[in-house]
Amino acid sequence: MTARNILFIMCDQLRFDYLGCTGHPTLETPNIDALAARGVRFDRAYVQSPICGPSRMSFYTGRYVRSHGSTWNGSPLRVGEMTLGEHLAPLGVRSVLCGKTHMVADRAGMARLGIAPDSVIGARVAECGFEVWERFDGLYPSRGRRRPENYNAYLRARGYDDENPWETWANSAEGDDGEVLSGWLLGHNDRPARVAEPDSETPWTTSRAIEFIDETEGPWCLHLSYIKPHWPYVVPEPYASMYGPEDVPPPVRSEAERRDAHPVLAGFQQHRVSRAFSDEAVRRKVIPAYMGLIRQIDDQIGRLMAHLDSRGLTEDTLIVFTSDHGDYLGDHWLGEKELFHDASVRIPLIVVDPDRAADVTRGTVSETLVEAIDLVPTFVDWYEGEVASHILEGHSLLPALRGADQTPRAAVFSEYDYAFRLTRRTLGQEIADSRLIMVFDGRWKMIHAVGFPPMLYDLDADPDELHDLGRDPDHAAVRTRLCELLLDWATRHHNRVTRSDAEIEAASTREFDAGIWIGFIDEDDVAEAERDGHGGN
Amino acid sequence: MTARNILFIMCDQLRFDYLGCTGHPTLETPNIDALAARGVRFDRAYVQSPICGPSRMSFYTGRYVRSHGSTWNGSPLRVGEMTLGEHLAPLGVRSVLCGKTHMVADRAGMARLGIAPDSVIGARVAECGFEVWERFDGLYPSRGRRRPENYNAYLRARGYDDENPWETWANSAEGDDGEVLSGWLLGHNDRPARVAEPDSETPWTTSRAIEFIDETEGPWCLHLSYIKPHWPYVVPEPYASMYGPEDVPPPVRSEAERRDAHPVLAGFQQHRVSRAFSDEAVRRKVIPAYMGLIRQIDDQIGRLMAHLDSRGLTEDTLIVFTSDHGDYLGDHWLGEKELFHDASVRIPLIVVDPDRAADVTRGTVSETLVEAIDLVPTFVDWYEGEVASHILEGHSLLPALRGADQTPRAAVFSEYDYAFRLTRRTLGQEIADSRLIMVFDGRWKMIHAVGFPPMLYDLDADPDELHDLGRDPDHAAVRTRLCELLLDWATRHHNRVTRSDAEIEAASTREFDAGIWIGFIDEDDVAEAERDGHGGN
Repeated sequence: MTARNILFIMCDQLRFDYLGCTGHPTLETPNIDALAARGVRFDRAYVQSPICGPSRMSFYTGRYVRSHGSTWNGSPLRVGEMTLGEHLAPLGVRSVLCGKTHMVADRAGMARLGIAPDSVIGARVAECGFEVWERFDGLYPSRGRRRPENYNAYLRARGYDDENPWETWANSAEGDDGEVLSGWLLGHNDRPARVAEPDSETPWTTSRAIEFIDETEGPWCLHLSYIKPHWPYVVPEPYASMYGPEDVPPPVRSEAERRDAHPVLAGFQQHRVSRAFSDEAVRRKVIPAYMGLIRQIDDQIGRLMAHLDSRGLTEDTLIVFTSDHGDYLGDHWLGEKELFHDASVRIPLIVVDPDRAADVTRGTVSETLVEAIDLVPTFVDWYEGEVASHILEGHSLLPALRGADQTPRAAVFSEYDYAFRLTRRTLGQEIADSRLIMVFDGRWKMIHAVGFPPMLYDLDADPDELHDLGRDPDHAAVRTRLCELLLDWATRHHNRVTRSDAEIEAASTREFDAGIWIGFIDEDDVAEAERDGHGGN
Repeated sequence: MTARNILFIMCDQLRFDYLGCTGHPTLETPNIDALAARGVRFDRAYVQSPICGPSRMSFYTGRYVRSHGSTWNGSPLRVGEMTLGEHLAPLGVRSVLCGKTHMVADRAGMARLGIAPDSVIGARVAECGFEVWERFDGLYPSRGRRRPENYNAYLRARGYDDENPWETWANSAEGDDGEVLSGWLLGHNDRPARVAEPDSETPWTTSRAIEFIDETEGPWCLHLSYIKPHWPYVVPEPYASMYGPEDVPPPVRSEAERRDAHPVLAGFQQHRVSRAFSDEAVRRKVIPAYMGLIRQIDDQIGRLMAHLDSRGLTEDTLIVFTSDHGDYLGDHWLGEKELFHDASVRIPLIVVDPDRAADVTRGTVSETLVEAIDLVPTFVDWYEGEVASHILEGHSLLPALRGADQTPRAAVFSEYDYAFRLTRRTLGQEIADSRLIMVFDGRWKMIHAVGFPPMLYDLDADPDELHDLGRDPDHAAVRTRLCELLLDWATRHHNRVTRSDAEIEAASTREFDAGIWIGFIDEDDVAEAERDGHGGN
């Protein structure tokens, strides 16, 4: 019997609506669409934070951002937080990384606990629980210190001669006179990457994954984590020419959104990247490249699926295709991500469960509310392990994949810590108060902002989220109800991680049995309790 | 110059109002009162959970229960949670335990991280950051597995012959025919302990502390943690006869409290220990012993202070005297602790700061709201260390001790997880929902209870907390305001422990400087940003 595997594919900064199967008008993604046809597309999936690092730490720990505590890019994941790899290891499964995680190790915490970074456990802890096949985070500016050693060596061996060909070849374009133009600059994003297509990041990452698959026996959980279509928005030919300004959808925005903006939204609209994407000329250069990068991923998915087929692995591999967050691309007068409109916080999510039991849902679209933290429980469930519900805060998707009726979750939650952002300074906000929390119940989306009124959108009446009802007196009752959901969620035990519910259930008579008698008056009381088994409490 | 030390004295289950200096009508505690005269008595100090383990983990980590996650007795403190010892070690201070902590090591977490329990770091982690001089938790029933090896060896050497003289001598009485009567049983608590007074737990623990002080150079932070007056309520002569039924104050309770009880309160009133303490005959047996145990502690404090004086340490030692929670003793038809009336959640707290700067407050009573989590920051501050405010959730008391004006905190918070208790079953409550949170702003005390209305008391109009206004329509506005405080507190970042505020402040231009250019359109943008230093965001 073949081992059961998981192929956990993640894109970076891929908007939910930039796929064929999610309705993009001109972008074709036949291979990803084919996954949707073989599995279930979860249409209302949300990340726990609309920014790489925190979102990924939630994907990898199965816990909310407030629980794992890594609230922004570069904030180390505290030592001891359990990760996917640690949940799957007892089930005999290797969790392996090929691509990006954005993980930063908690060196101070490791030192305090005497965990050597070069020990087996230390290396695992420092890499977010993964065994590293290839770590490739996709942001290696020449001014910075880190380099993608394997990828750069590959490029050099292929003749791309430079200290950091990642930047100068794979993420740069060329001017009319052959000069190197930085792909970091949006004004150059209408030009093709200098690198040849087979040598660019997405095919190379795919090749590395294929090498892993070929060299390894299962069971494995392979996290194939593409760094694209995240900026630098540079794609080689033929993808660079595949889409043009005519394929760029008009931005979703209104003048009123700028005029009456919530203070936090107004702050973000003033960020450099938002001003840039509010310029239609920028959108017309960048978005075709963004689309080309997605189309390139789609082709690589096709290549990968063919390879799985050729190795006979398709029937035993659970496949997930998703993204860590979206990209505003100028919608709502914003660039990047970080706030909570669907363009930013909603993700594509396709799960292909090869089990016969999932045939009943194959090719369907699910409207159930899903969170990124649902994946770890899904993976544990796929291996028939027990989901550690005192640690993992999401729910397995396998029942939904296999057609079971389930009580839908009341709401999804997502957080953003803008302590690190310019808006905090312009608003004069304290670091501790620079927190935003989204609660979305499937219709109403409220964003709680400390020190300000909330933002509120009615997704039924206003799917484009153009009308902020956060200060509208007619919607006070809705806000109160969502505040109650928020309070319930925030006051939950997020850190009661050392004791399972089963242990709590079993604890009630333990004290009495051990001779700790509380409230007993005399020997008759004890004798009676021993007879009745009512010692506890 | 002598080293600066900290003597951190904790009693177990000592009510705030069972001291001379806090107003008990007949219990005299001249030595503890003398501490109050030399320092500041904080009259409104509250624990983070009215039960031993969680409360202590908050004392020792400087963090709320929801943050450290050890929500009930016996729930291991998750590996990696920073403790007092780890905050003081970089300042060159040894944190040493003599007595009780209630700590349970996170063996599973340690194993996952490869931390051997018998390594230096492993032993420290397993003992809540303390170097163990004497671990003596005070609950060693003969039916259980654990024994106080040093104390039992001491007793045996003194002729108390038994497998577990802790139970049969120190915590048992004798019947009229010389039979051994278990001190666990309240009906026997009017009889003296079998052990001779100098051999009972409180003097022995004090002797162990004195041995440490004599054998050790500072700087040290010694946690002298008495297990009394916690049950078993057994005290030797002469303390056993020192107080009688005439010294037992009438219980603070009303018939209405039972008749119209909030469902959770009603549940707790049905616990065995509550029913026992609702019987005046039990109170008249137990409370004199409880008072005797406190008086014995007071005498030992006197002995210890004389010893510090004789060693010339008084002028260089910060002294704290406190308790981990109170004891209902029949008030409100309750026994034990666990709920949030002052009898349970409010603690005595005296701090003696020998620094000259504290002369201005010596002998005063402070009405400022204080939480148990304020002690670790106070200790760090005493050593002029930097308080890690991204980890520690309290505030140093040194400014208050030295007469500084401070913005008072808006409220204190305390939590209780009744998942482990009979009341959860009688109410049919889910484990995850069995949480209570108190918010007290100095006048209004609200207890949030998932699935039920809150409890609400007006401490100004009703200092005995007999009238629950939680469902009173006239107090809706107060409840709303306290709910807002609760929401603000609950939604704070409690786990952003790997990045300090200073690091966040410094982070803003780091990305740009490293070549990560977000939202830049062309080379002119970059050049301008480099000139202006406005690269970030």
